[in-house]
Amino acid sequence: MRDYIKKDPWNIIEESFDPALNRISESIFSIGNGKMGQRANFEEKYSGSTLRGSYVAGVYYPDKTRVGWWKNGYPEYFAKVLNATNWIGIHVNVDGEELDLATANVTNFKRVLNMQEGILQRSFVATLSSGKQIEVQSTRFISIVDTDNAVIRYSVKALNFSGKLRFTPLLDLNVVNQDSNYDEQFWTEISRNAAQGTASITGETKKTAFHVACAFKLGMEYDGDDALYTIAPFSQDKLVGNTVNLTIVENQTVSLIKYVAVISSLYADKANIQGVAEASVAAAYAKGFAAMLTEQRAAWAKKWAECDITIEGDVAAQQAIRFNILQMNQTYTGEDERLNIGPKGFTGEKYGGVTYWDTEAYCLPFYLKTADPKVARQLLVYRYKHLGRAIENAAKLGFKHGAALYPMVTINGEECHNEWEITFEEIHRNGAMSFAIYNYINHTGDVGYLAEYGLEVLIAISRFWRQRVQWSDRRNGYIMLGVTGPNEYENNVNNNWYTNLLAQWTLNYTRESLAQVKVNDPQRYAEIVAKTQLGAHEDEETIWADVAAKIVLPIDEATGVFIQHDGFMDKELLPMTAIPKGEYPIHKHWSWDRILRSCYIKQADVLQGIYNFEANYDKATLKKNFDFYEPLTVHESSLSPCIHSILASSLGYEDLAYKFYLRTARLDLDDYNHDTDDGLHITSMAGTWMSVVEGFGGVRVQQGVLHLNPSLPKQWQGYSFRITFRGALLKVAVKANAIIIENESDQKLSMQVAGVEQHLAARQTLNLAR
Amino acid sequence: MRDYIKKDPWNIIEESFDPALNRISESIFSIGNGKMGQRANFEEKYSGSTLRGSYVAGVYYPDKTRVGWWKNGYPEYFAKVLNATNWIGIHVNVDGEELDLATANVTNFKRVLNMQEGILQRSFVATLSSGKQIEVQSTRFISIVDTDNAVIRYSVKALNFSGKLRFTPLLDLNVVNQDSNYDEQFWTEISRNAAQGTASITGETKKTAFHVACAFKLGMEYDGDDALYTIAPFSQDKLVGNTVNLTIVENQTVSLIKYVAVISSLYADKANIQGVAEASVAAAYAKGFAAMLTEQRAAWAKKWAECDITIEGDVAAQQAIRFNILQMNQTYTGEDERLNIGPKGFTGEKYGGVTYWDTEAYCLPFYLKTADPKVARQLLVYRYKHLGRAIENAAKLGFKHGAALYPMVTINGEECHNEWEITFEEIHRNGAMSFAIYNYINHTGDVGYLAEYGLEVLIAISRFWRQRVQWSDRRNGYIMLGVTGPNEYENNVNNNWYTNLLAQWTLNYTRESLAQVKVNDPQRYAEIVAKTQLGAHEDEETIWADVAAKIVLPIDEATGVFIQHDGFMDKELLPMTAIPKGEYPIHKHWSWDRILRSCYIKQADVLQGIYNFEANYDKATLKKNFDFYEPLTVHESSLSPCIHSILASSLGYEDLAYKFYLRTARLDLDDYNHDTDDGLHITSMAGTWMSVVEGFGGVRVQQGVLHLNPSLPKQWQGYSFRITFRGALLKVAVKANAIIIENESDQKLSMQVAGVEQHLAARQTLNLAR
Repeated sequence: MRDYIKKDPWNIIEESFDPALNRISESIFSIGNGKMGQRANFEEKYSGSTLRGSYVAGVYYPDKTRVGWWKNGYPEYFAKVLNATNWIGIHVNVDGEELDLATANVTNFKRVLNMQEGILQRSFVATLSSGKQIEVQSTRFISIVDTDNAVIRYSVKALNFSGKLRFTPLLDLNVVNQDSNYDEQFWTEISRNAAQGTASITGETKKTAFHVACAFKLGMEYDGDDALYTIAPFSQDKLVGNTVNLTIVENQTVSLIKYVAVISSLYADKANIQGVAEASVAAAYAKGFAAMLTEQRAAWAKKWAECDITIEGDVAAQQAIRFNILQMNQTYTGEDERLNIGPKGFTGEKYGGVTYWDTEAYCLPFYLKTADPKVARQLLVYRYKHLGRAIENAAKLGFKHGAALYPMVTINGEECHNEWEITFEEIHRNGAMSFAIYNYINHTGDVGYLAEYGLEVLIAISRFWRQRVQWSDRRNGYIMLGVTGPNEYENNVNNNWYTNLLAQWTLNYTRESLAQVKVNDPQRYAEIVAKTQLGAHEDEETIWADVAAKIVLPIDEATGVFIQHDGFMDKELLPMTAIPKGEYPIHKHWSWDRILRSCYIKQADVLQGIYNFEANYDKATLKKNFDFYEPLTVHESSLSPCIHSILASSLGYEDLAYKFYLRTARLDLDDYNHDTDDGLHITSMAGTWMSVVEGFGGVRVQQGVLHLNPSLPKQWQGYSFRITFRGALLKVAVKANAIIIENESDQKLSMQVAGVEQHLAARQTLNLAR
Repeated sequence: MRDYIKKDPWNIIEESFDPALNRISESIFSIGNGKMGQRANFEEKYSGSTLRGSYVAGVYYPDKTRVGWWKNGYPEYFAKVLNATNWIGIHVNVDGEELDLATANVTNFKRVLNMQEGILQRSFVATLSSGKQIEVQSTRFISIVDTDNAVIRYSVKALNFSGKLRFTPLLDLNVVNQDSNYDEQFWTEISRNAAQGTASITGETKKTAFHVACAFKLGMEYDGDDALYTIAPFSQDKLVGNTVNLTIVENQTVSLIKYVAVISSLYADKANIQGVAEASVAAAYAKGFAAMLTEQRAAWAKKWAECDITIEGDVAAQQAIRFNILQMNQTYTGEDERLNIGPKGFTGEKYGGVTYWDTEAYCLPFYLKTADPKVARQLLVYRYKHLGRAIENAAKLGFKHGAALYPMVTINGEECHNEWEITFEEIHRNGAMSFAIYNYINHTGDVGYLAEYGLEVLIAISRFWRQRVQWSDRRNGYIMLGVTGPNEYENNVNNNWYTNLLAQWTLNYTRESLAQVKVNDPQRYAEIVAKTQLGAHEDEETIWADVAAKIVLPIDEATGVFIQHDGFMDKELLPMTAIPKGEYPIHKHWSWDRILRSCYIKQADVLQGIYNFEANYDKATLKKNFDFYEPLTVHESSLSPCIHSILASSLGYEDLAYKFYLRTARLDLDDYNHDTDDGLHITSMAGTWMSVVEGFGGVRVQQGVLHLNPSLPKQWQGYSFRITFRGALLKVAVKANAIIIENESDQKLSMQVAGVEQHLAARQTLNLAR
């Protein structure tokens, strides 16, 4: 854990330069707009430790799988997001000496991520070995308005000398991935171009043949004799740019504005892609830095109006929750159904930038409540478009008749992961796909989604579950052998309660959905039946009903606790407080077998199931399961504490709820797990947001009705959050003695607040005592 | 399956040259002497498909582990036997054209492995593109008398021309391993030397710094004018040799004899190792080819007298069983306690040439019954010498107080394997180590071994079991969670019957052994107690007794069948005949999860336990377990059928016994599994031998007494085998109506034959009716 980020409600602030922290800061100060992202690398040359990262959404490389012992069914490759053309580069040379923060004496360093406006700023004074001092100010943003553009305003002031200054703005395609299984370069150059004041370059990814074109156009603010500066283009293998030579006099400030466009072949014909980038950057140049900045501020203000959370009396918490909201919005905007959310977003390479069930389980609830329904819908359509590949994936594992197994990890629908106990066995992810459909429809009321897309997915997943179980005479029920539940600290177990529950629920929901579509849209129903060959090989609906009715859901008869999986109760059940000091986290200290045979739970498993279907369980059931599992859970996944926090809030365990909220609230800002240098924990940020809104706020949607049941952590004086629900935009403020609900929209709404029905007219504010 | 090897009782014969079969033949025709081994690569240049293999016992390279997803406790490297200096090379050039069997027209090709004499011969006629024909005869052997030496006699006859002939005998250190995780070269050159008629070269392995020196000295049989031939040395990076230029006339035969020495730094000081090799080869040269050949024949005759098996009426079976005996003897001789037996012996690189529990479970019984007890004893001492590392290995996994876990795979005592479900969980191997001690003493009566070495190992293994189990109130017993049994088609199961049984047995045997040594050798007992700190941290013997008494051994109450592990009976139990056609072997067709949740058993598991302790179970118990598990077993390990064959013999299931015997009898000769090209299945050869001697022969040693209970497969007219037992050498011949037991030694013996006690005087022959 570290504590070097200055607390501020709207800004992330670093006030000195420590090379040892640089990679962490590079992650924290990352910017993005859902279409591209950029780690907070320096514009200048930097010879110190850095993880360069310029990412372009949807552009990936299939890196050949590395595995010790091959198993049938493993994928041939692991798709990875790529470090792409470095577009931020502006090298700075003072009288022949290169500016390099690793060698210069750096003072007055300040880095600020202005979350309210989506702008990254940096300033410092560098004393070069010659003794010459310059003051640098850099402002950088990736536009959320002109989403192909970014811009950097880079200013240098000569503090104690007059002399020569050279800027070298560049576009560098000679980039590598740190995470490359066989140390390959992933890019080849297609074309490049450089002229006075402009440059462009197009790269192609190996194997996948994506093209990415980058262009820049320069603006100069030079308050001197134009004759004293020259701009010359240069172009070499994988590198283009300009050299800007000028004379600077003491106390003079010179600014270079680098307008940038990044265009991928997802959005432009390859034939003309470099031209598209050049045109885009020309338009940005024409709009100008000031106008772009104004638009950026306005657009972010609009975003914040939909999703801001305020926390009174705790600036660290305030800063952290906004940071999480900012990063969620920088990562995904729902503009493109081909995109999704990697665990690190655009802030690092780890986990390859590919999609896990995190999206459905954690990110979806965030977007459902903070954005237009179409944003969440795109996440579902992404999976719908991958249905064919999920069916192929299941077929590879021996399933038939259109059964689908969604991949554990994917970028294009194909499985990328290669650990048998996860790839083949962590199949509960299929349940997350079906539950997401329900969740989306329950929140938005968009029942049309079912007929259009959802039902086909549900049928294919139900087929998988039906084939994955087997009848057991001994158990007098359907059993599911050889799975890994959400708790990855158990592998290859039988009858994982969570997985069986999701299977049961999916089978029932699919049947209900079929019935619903049959009534509401008989033509589409007929289409789907024909397309999926429903019932052609067996009476599927009857069998699904039978499996759902008779699937084994292990329960401890004595206590009524749901048993995580067969045999779990045979273990020595010791609370995690029994783990010897110095051996925590266990995944860093214990061998895998020891972890597996221990009772310790990596992340919510039974409790994740109860969370999903909370309305189906009474408080006593929730309580006994929470009381049983909570002490055994080590939360060695950043996705775990939020579920515990929410359920603790539900049970009125306020201290526990707050404790679990704290575990991830500042996970990255404080580098809690010593891994922020790899990138930010984007998907767990959604979990933190859930801890606040679903946990403290008690927000639920049950049978299409919004419920609020807020509590106030005693550490806070009050808090507020904004949610969108069925056309209404609500600001909910929770104070010591009041709940104030403002309807900021023209949509009236009926809802339940602390169990009491309330009616909110358009633009009305409800002020309720608590 | 292939069938190109000509059936012959004493020879392995290939009668034509098929490049597609070359790598298979290279494996089959391998030769060795326990200290070095050589695949049947050609002496000449060969541009076709070949797997070059010259192996030197005990010389290995720690290849960096390759793994997809790292787990705590994985080893950093995988030790591998190395392809070492190519010492067989003799390039042949006819009037400027290089002999290469991939490009020449090859006729009259014949390759013979003379098993009786341990000699490899090859002859062929090659027609070069010039039309010139030569007849080549090569005789090669690795001496089992002068164990540092090998010799090649290579003759060329000019069939249809007179002209220039050039031999280029060489020693080539520029060799690679096919199996290299990161395509590294493993050798550096230390020194080399070449003079007229001699050459030598010394290589060093990277990281491990083993030195291997090779030398040759040439003899020539040239019936012409000496002035017409010249010999000149050459020497270049990693390559030394001679060039022998001569004139050959039509119908003349010229022979080159290449005497070779291979010396590793296991047996010589590095400082002078090349000198040792040169001296060794000089001595071989002085002895001469004919004398070496005579000695080789005599030495092999002596070996065969101890271990031959004859089979009447089935030449394919006769050939195969001798092939297996030959290869076992070529692989291991017991001369050096630092050596052991790799699954492929000296015949290929696969499995790295490292040691598995195969040694204790399959090879030990072979050597126990076919060689002096000191041979088997060396295998035990090998593990004793690794005890310290087994304790370190266990400590790495969290075990304490001197508990030992022997590695799954090793060459120097350190674990090399890296699949968690095997490395960390296939811990039954520890039981094989303790059972081997019992087995050795039971066979040999060498109770002194216990005090000298065995007891320390038993204590350390018992400590492991004691810590590995945990008490379960629910089961009212000690349980063992998270193991993989011998059946690797189940991973991470609880209470594997076999593993728990071996644990129980070891705990009891250790206590008995302690009591025995305490009485027999109180001084050594005190030493061991002090050295191992026995009882210092807890009353170990009492606790071991408690664990042994109360360990859970799952049994099906209804049927009395021992349950392979918790939950096994929940599976859908279908006979392997239910596996759809075309999906067998399942490991090539099914994904791993499907295999795991099926009932199919890779290799004997419960039955392996019953085999180990057969005397403890009545026939009814054996029968019900065999009848239950046999139909579920797919034998996708070559180590499985022998156990089934032996137990089937025991139950009088003669057809089944023969069927299982056949599964491995000609595994390599007929390339049954399409993998003989990788090398021979050395350790499973021991299993085939067991099928004959323990299975059909019904040989057992119970409480130190030899039992015979022979049956005669109806496919055979009779068979005989030789075994050594407590100083006696017996030849047992089983005929339709008789069992003839000849005592070929001066040691009298009492034994049980078909349940009747018999007394054999020295040199006596018993002729019993059956």
